[in-house]
Amino acid sequence: MNISPLARPFPELPEIEGVRRGVATAGYKPWARADVTLLAFDEGTTVAGVTTQSKCPSPEVDLCRRHLPHGRARALVVNAGNSNAFTGLRGAEATAAQVREAARLLGCEPREVFAASTGVIGVPLPAEKATAGVAAAHRALGRASWLEATNAIGTTDTFPKAAMREATIHGTKVKLVGFIKGSGMIAPDMATMLGFLVTDAGIPAALLQQLLAAANGKSFSCITVDSDTSTSDTLLAFATGKAGNRPPETLTDAADFAAALGSLCLELAQLVVRDGEGASRFIAITVSGAVSDDSAHRIAMSVANSPLVKTAVAGGDANWGRVVAAVGKAGEPADRDRLSIRFGGIEVAANGMVVEGYDEAPVAAHLAGQDVAIGVDLGLGEGRAQVWTCDLTHGYISINADYRS
Amino acid sequence: MNISPLARPFPELPEIEGVRRGVATAGYKPWARADVTLLAFDEGTTVAGVTTQSKCPSPEVDLCRRHLPHGRARALVVNAGNSNAFTGLRGAEATAAQVREAARLLGCEPREVFAASTGVIGVPLPAEKATAGVAAAHRALGRASWLEATNAIGTTDTFPKAAMREATIHGTKVKLVGFIKGSGMIAPDMATMLGFLVTDAGIPAALLQQLLAAANGKSFSCITVDSDTSTSDTLLAFATGKAGNRPPETLTDAADFAAALGSLCLELAQLVVRDGEGASRFIAITVSGAVSDDSAHRIAMSVANSPLVKTAVAGGDANWGRVVAAVGKAGEPADRDRLSIRFGGIEVAANGMVVEGYDEAPVAAHLAGQDVAIGVDLGLGEGRAQVWTCDLTHGYISINADYRS
Repeated sequence: MNISPLARPFPELPEIEGVRRGVATAGYKPWARADVTLLAFDEGTTVAGVTTQSKCPSPEVDLCRRHLPHGRARALVVNAGNSNAFTGLRGAEATAAQVREAARLLGCEPREVFAASTGVIGVPLPAEKATAGVAAAHRALGRASWLEATNAIGTTDTFPKAAMREATIHGTKVKLVGFIKGSGMIAPDMATMLGFLVTDAGIPAALLQQLLAAANGKSFSCITVDSDTSTSDTLLAFATGKAGNRPPETLTDAADFAAALGSLCLELAQLVVRDGEGASRFIAITVSGAVSDDSAHRIAMSVANSPLVKTAVAGGDANWGRVVAAVGKAGEPADRDRLSIRFGGIEVAANGMVVEGYDEAPVAAHLAGQDVAIGVDLGLGEGRAQVWTCDLTHGYISINADYRS
Repeated sequence: MNISPLARPFPELPEIEGVRRGVATAGYKPWARADVTLLAFDEGTTVAGVTTQSKCPSPEVDLCRRHLPHGRARALVVNAGNSNAFTGLRGAEATAAQVREAARLLGCEPREVFAASTGVIGVPLPAEKATAGVAAAHRALGRASWLEATNAIGTTDTFPKAAMREATIHGTKVKLVGFIKGSGMIAPDMATMLGFLVTDAGIPAALLQQLLAAANGKSFSCITVDSDTSTSDTLLAFATGKAGNRPPETLTDAADFAAALGSLCLELAQLVVRDGEGASRFIAITVSGAVSDDSAHRIAMSVANSPLVKTAVAGGDANWGRVVAAVGKAGEPADRDRLSIRFGGIEVAANGMVVEGYDEAPVAAHLAGQDVAIGVDLGLGEGRAQVWTCDLTHGYISINADYRS
């Protein structure tokens, strides 16, 4: 697997007090790499999460949904190579067995353990491998780096993706680390593929949930690689409280933390797009002048999911007509004769037709680069949205026409 | 351009009394082929039509919408190589000039002339070429075959697509001919790319409209190549009345004609899928057990538009997990644990997991063929739908990464 040309280097990440990491090889596929990851949290860690809106979620998603209302976490288990989705009772039992084993080893309740799996759909997680794997990861606790943990949760990812932020709560400095996997089947619907955030901040679970949902709405919900929402999308945030800050009680108390969390989520979301299957260009789509922000978001996603727009960008072609068509098909209020389109900030069409004396040369130069900006103004109202995607290339076809076989 | 491996031979088509055809080269692109088509209808011809639901329709679509309520047609003009979409007042004026010229030459009112254009978006139709072109096509009236007319309306089509049917109205035999173009930007939303039906039946325009809308709902609205609804989708039906049948007044009178019309539209719609850009396999998706027919249709379209399902089929991979994910993302009622999936009639998953003793060999053999059948049963209700699409291959990327440049 070639590394994405849009890859970013793995950053320096701080330790987060109250979090220990271990990885091991359960052997979900015939490979030598680590494929089970255990994060152990000290007592007092709070948790929040958002999961896929798919009507066919994995047993791990079901489990996270059951455990989240309790708001307490002692462990996270992640399996790579097998998503365990659509595996019926047998898959659910394997997940439960793995979670029980983690709880036994850590001396906590099963409902304080969270799980996520990624990989092929429809093959039940092998319960014995999963249980032995989490036990091996438990023995290795404290010995895995952030990089090793990030690599261990990946599947078709071509580079490891993580980021960090700092913030202040009631005068105390806190740290946030996030790591994530995802490359294909990416159109998170309120959540992402598998993303995990840990912080040493002390934050009540209910407030953390509120902050995470808000950050997610402006980040993971604004990216798409291929419009295919996954069965397993899971974003979890764990707060150990080891920074010793006085816990925030209101959104105002947590304003700086919320900004850092939002910025962290956005960086992670964009890293997923940068590792989009077959991606050769990173595309930012900004929609303004819509009747509402929601309408702007739906129009932006219609452009971001248009195969014709994505292949045009792949070909370095400033084919703004395809952008017009994608706006038109979104089903949202639009007036052809007020619409304007920009590439790289250069207006190419306005008021329903190409601009007078349109010069394609600077637009073509913009499209020759790796970062492409498409702007759409509807001229109807104040609604705005921004989303991010990648182009659609031969690489996507090559990866997906023979991924499982 | 290689001919689609899914192509069908051009059929023998009867003449329709009251219809004359002419083609000419307007020269919308630097090519020698005919690119303007004129159909002239005798007096008394009725017309019905459905057009794109895009919020950014072409001026030709606007014009058809204005003219359709009058219910009378004397001519149809089709331009290939330039869609004239998103070209503002200048594009609308070019269309109006071409239509006025056709009306002048045929001695009819402009509102009895219908127009459609296909090709690149955003370049105004050159008015002089368009007017001269339609005049040349008028001079050639009576000299173009159905095949020549069908070829003259094509763009990225790799084979000409047409079909015929016969029906009986009040004991009189009538004939229907349809011809169509379309290959990419195909996700007709209540209409198709450009499709034209002519019949010698006498049918009041209002009844023809009702019959056409019903046929469209079960044919063109049930196909997708790439989810990209066009700015220019137009389906028009012209009835010359030359068969001399007593005009039908009710749906019951027209039952046999309606069946033939529905069957004709379905054949044409499937021919468009067979010429889907880059297509190597024809895919029929049947959804049953949904809470309603509409819900079944939306789930079927979610599967049909899933890049991961389409690339799996391209790779001959019975990756039913991707079908599950596509069902799950549709946003329609679904219960993972009641869901079953079939390939080529063979059940591969049921009740939320793979079937006991699943044998992939016969499923792989089915997927090795050109015609693939995917069945989804939701186990919830009586809702049913069927849609058709093609696979997503390197050919689609090759065609669309450099179509315009």
